[in-house]
Amino acid sequence: MTSQDIVTAGLVVIGDEILSGRTKDVNIGATAEFCTDLGIELREVRIVSDELDAIVEAVNALRARYTYVFTTGGIGPTHDDITADAIAKAFGVALPINETARAMLEARWKQTGTEINEARLRMARIPEGADLIVNSVSAAPGFRIGNVHVMAGVPVIMRSMLEALAPKLRGGRKVASITVKAAVGEGTVGGPLARLQAEYPDVKMGSYPQMGRDRVMTELVLRSSDPVLLEEAAEKVRAMVAEAHAKAGVEPPAED
Amino acid sequence: MTSQDIVTAGLVVIGDEILSGRTKDVNIGATAEFCTDLGIELREVRIVSDELDAIVEAVNALRARYTYVFTTGGIGPTHDDITADAIAKAFGVALPINETARAMLEARWKQTGTEINEARLRMARIPEGADLIVNSVSAAPGFRIGNVHVMAGVPVIMRSMLEALAPKLRGGRKVASITVKAAVGEGTVGGPLARLQAEYPDVKMGSYPQMGRDRVMTELVLRSSDPVLLEEAAEKVRAMVAEAHAKAGVEPPAED
Repeated sequence: MTSQDIVTAGLVVIGDEILSGRTKDVNIGATAEFCTDLGIELREVRIVSDELDAIVEAVNALRARYTYVFTTGGIGPTHDDITADAIAKAFGVALPINETARAMLEARWKQTGTEINEARLRMARIPEGADLIVNSVSAAPGFRIGNVHVMAGVPVIMRSMLEALAPKLRGGRKVASITVKAAVGEGTVGGPLARLQAEYPDVKMGSYPQMGRDRVMTELVLRSSDPVLLEEAAEKVRAMVAEAHAKAGVEPPAED
Repeated sequence: MTSQDIVTAGLVVIGDEILSGRTKDVNIGATAEFCTDLGIELREVRIVSDELDAIVEAVNALRARYTYVFTTGGIGPTHDDITADAIAKAFGVALPINETARAMLEARWKQTGTEINEARLRMARIPEGADLIVNSVSAAPGFRIGNVHVMAGVPVIMRSMLEALAPKLRGGRKVASITVKAAVGEGTVGGPLARLQAEYPDVKMGSYPQMGRDRVMTELVLRSSDPVLLEEAAEKVRAMVAEAHAKAGVEPPAED
């Protein structure tokens, strides 16, 4: 495995409504699943307010650090939609009306009889040098500049933009996972699991207690880009869990 | 309004399972609502992986910047639970077994007939100088050191810790909000809303399109710590929206 095989990403979620609790974010989970499916490792997420400097700082920090950066939110027609301004500032480029974007929007507005005004035309302002990310839901495009991909905050539009992006992103090594279920507590398997983790540094082992079940349950999740190593480590974890079940005198959990 | 009235917070969510998409976070929304209720402004959230340096960096950045920092995740009994280690490193203090924490845990384990072992005792490791945050759900405590509050990642335990914390946190000025509904698109109200925002800089105005309704709907949300100014600005926004309805020849939306 070479370092070129590792493709990483950071996500910046922009919006006061998320930080106030008024809106519950669902874009983080969607982006996380999207990245995992493509073999891209989402390494960090930052949620920032609708403040120019906060957005600029987060985008600049993450674009220097990861292969790709995604942003969601702040590209609508109102004064609090300042993501395009922040990206233009972060890259030190102008923010003119993009004629292709304007044409896309005007075509949609003509269909729907929507008035063209200054507020709506804000959505055609695209940083110089950026490519558009089309969106069939609302016609208002996102854009890509450098390694930064700017998307809408409305979940259905954001997912449509992710789909448009997918063929253009370089996927990394695929990471496979195996889940082993244990009918004992995390604390019971914690010691032997730590020893197996030390034995298999290239297989990442996580432990997740299951709350609200009718019996004690722990899920052990193993991840690796090496399927042979993953299966070998999983066999050892299964044996360790079987021993813990026997010692505790409990039945192994059903596979569900 | 003095600067002492402004109480801010940052949140660090720790866990590979959130970044992989395997687990969908609900703690961000819960913390955001908790802060808003107490008059604390949640300004930034970072989600980081189960890597010591990533946690240390995020905690150090946020604790220098905000009144309070909250963290969720990574305080269980397994090898991937390294939040206590990271906090001890961030503050440059030792991480001994805390005898009060050990007594709390052992009392619970005695009740439930749970074996005491090295993995479980990891949960009694508390940075030197920290106060415990009790948790009635699992008995494993979180802790506070400096302005950093370390909580569990399991949502029901996290919320129980927030409740335990609430009386100890200094609330800020309460921010009230008024929502005005418009039966026109964001782009229609965007221009006049921007002018009203400029007229009332101390009332924060946000605009949120409503997808999936049977008619076009936009919610305009006004927030301010000054209730008189808030009502005055809301009156002007209501008048602006009424004018937009009249111009578009649409009925105002029902209050729901």
